[in-house]
Amino acid sequence: MNIAVPFKQVDVFTTSFFKGNPVAVINFMDSEEEVPSTLLQSIANWTNLSETTFLFKPSDPKNDYRLRIFTPNEELPFAGHPTIGSCRAFLEFTGRKDASQINQECKLGVVRISVTNEKIAFEAVKADIDAIPEALVHGLEKCISTTFKTTPKVLHVGPEWVVGLVEDSQTCFNLNPDFSLLGDMSGKFGITGLVIAGKKPDSSGYEMRAFAPSQGVNEDPVCGSGCLAFVRYLQDLYQTSSTTTFDITQGGRLQREGKLSATIEHGKDKISYHVGGQALTIINGMINI
Amino acid sequence: MNIAVPFKQVDVFTTSFFKGNPVAVINFMDSEEEVPSTLLQSIANWTNLSETTFLFKPSDPKNDYRLRIFTPNEELPFAGHPTIGSCRAFLEFTGRKDASQINQECKLGVVRISVTNEKIAFEAVKADIDAIPEALVHGLEKCISTTFKTTPKVLHVGPEWVVGLVEDSQTCFNLNPDFSLLGDMSGKFGITGLVIAGKKPDSSGYEMRAFAPSQGVNEDPVCGSGCLAFVRYLQDLYQTSSTTTFDITQGGRLQREGKLSATIEHGKDKISYHVGGQALTIINGMINI
Repeated sequence: MNIAVPFKQVDVFTTSFFKGNPVAVINFMDSEEEVPSTLLQSIANWTNLSETTFLFKPSDPKNDYRLRIFTPNEELPFAGHPTIGSCRAFLEFTGRKDASQINQECKLGVVRISVTNEKIAFEAVKADIDAIPEALVHGLEKCISTTFKTTPKVLHVGPEWVVGLVEDSQTCFNLNPDFSLLGDMSGKFGITGLVIAGKKPDSSGYEMRAFAPSQGVNEDPVCGSGCLAFVRYLQDLYQTSSTTTFDITQGGRLQREGKLSATIEHGKDKISYHVGGQALTIINGMINI
Repeated sequence: MNIAVPFKQVDVFTTSFFKGNPVAVINFMDSEEEVPSTLLQSIANWTNLSETTFLFKPSDPKNDYRLRIFTPNEELPFAGHPTIGSCRAFLEFTGRKDASQINQECKLGVVRISVTNEKIAFEAVKADIDAIPEALVHGLEKCISTTFKTTPKVLHVGPEWVVGLVEDSQTCFNLNPDFSLLGDMSGKFGITGLVIAGKKPDSSGYEMRAFAPSQGVNEDPVCGSGCLAFVRYLQDLYQTSSTTTFDITQGGRLQREGKLSATIEHGKDKISYHVGGQALTIINGMINI
């Protein structure tokens, strides 16, 4: 296309540089040209990040922007940390630093994002939960060489995560999954991957890990959609009756220090699920396209 | 450190945007502060590229810059495409557009780089060749499910590449190596990985591929040190007596279009080996450290 457009690479779910999950964000909001999907895919393949996102003008003026999200191999309907990072980039690209509520269009639907000084949090568009076959439970236990403490279930949050708790946070941290077997199981049962968590002994918090070898990502350093799946799973498990927030850490085994905050919100007539954290812009510049 | 320093991400060995091999280059030449190696490693872990490089002032004023090269997991003594990309970035950072010869300090030694309008090429500091055990030959043939057309050897070019030719370019392109087995073999025999090439039927050129699963890179899209190993291997095989240049393509299976040029140069009293190609700066900006 021979144009240069604004580029940012944002570190998500962290309070320390280089310790969260990066996303590349490319700003086409001021571009009138049509950008072919094949080009977007080539860019996302080249950045080599788990996700690269592209900001466009919204289709509906009630919303703030339209987001397209690509892995190196395919386009996604929704993804968690790219939503937080793209919102941070949008606020900086547009100077909208006073915004407290942002509506993001993406293929899954309109995602409502709340913004405070410190934290950006998205609300689940979709968070359905289902039982999984015994054979999958046993197969997954074989993958992680331990037993689940609670019956794992599949969460439909955009990605299809199977979520389960293991004995405690240390057990979770120490897992060395058989990625080859997990990749095979994921393909066979049509799931994105596996989210494992364990409760910390000294607090209400959890250690979490997310594995998706069939997507080319053995372990995701810090995973927003996985965290959403996890908090929805906790509600199924504990049936909380008032608004509850959980602090979750992730990424230690990959030399990251991810910090997520997950909330089950009891509103007037519905329960909603929210995942948030801080996001720091690391790289600021222009990208030649 | 709380500073912002110049950043570029360069596409190497390509004439088309997003079709080569990316390297992130961070410019510390104007920074007086000591930068801890642990921070450089954290940055390289975070960019998720096969290599991230850092430019510093040279130790010896006869040279142009000192380069440190990191994969997501470790520091390297030398690497090919990061050398070409870092030199391109250096020329742009410093406005040295008229330079025709650049000396790059890196852990392997001083690398001589020639620059023309179109092409940047480095000369091998080291390109020794040795036979490998029969057991490794047979193991590697099992990994690639085909036989070698020429006896493979190990090339010491910084990385330790085993190089071999297969029947032809199409055979090379079609290979689906067993990465798990290749990773095991690499560890067992202390090699970096495997470079496979096949001659094209209609030209003097070659199709090449480079596999290094034990380094966390199943397939490198376009590999400069692998190409250096390959051209040194060709000299061992064909014993050319005059300066010869080979055109090599790589990366097609990863949706890239890598183009490398490899030269065996017969000088007055020695043979030298050179690998070059074009490099395009894609991202220009600043990085917060």
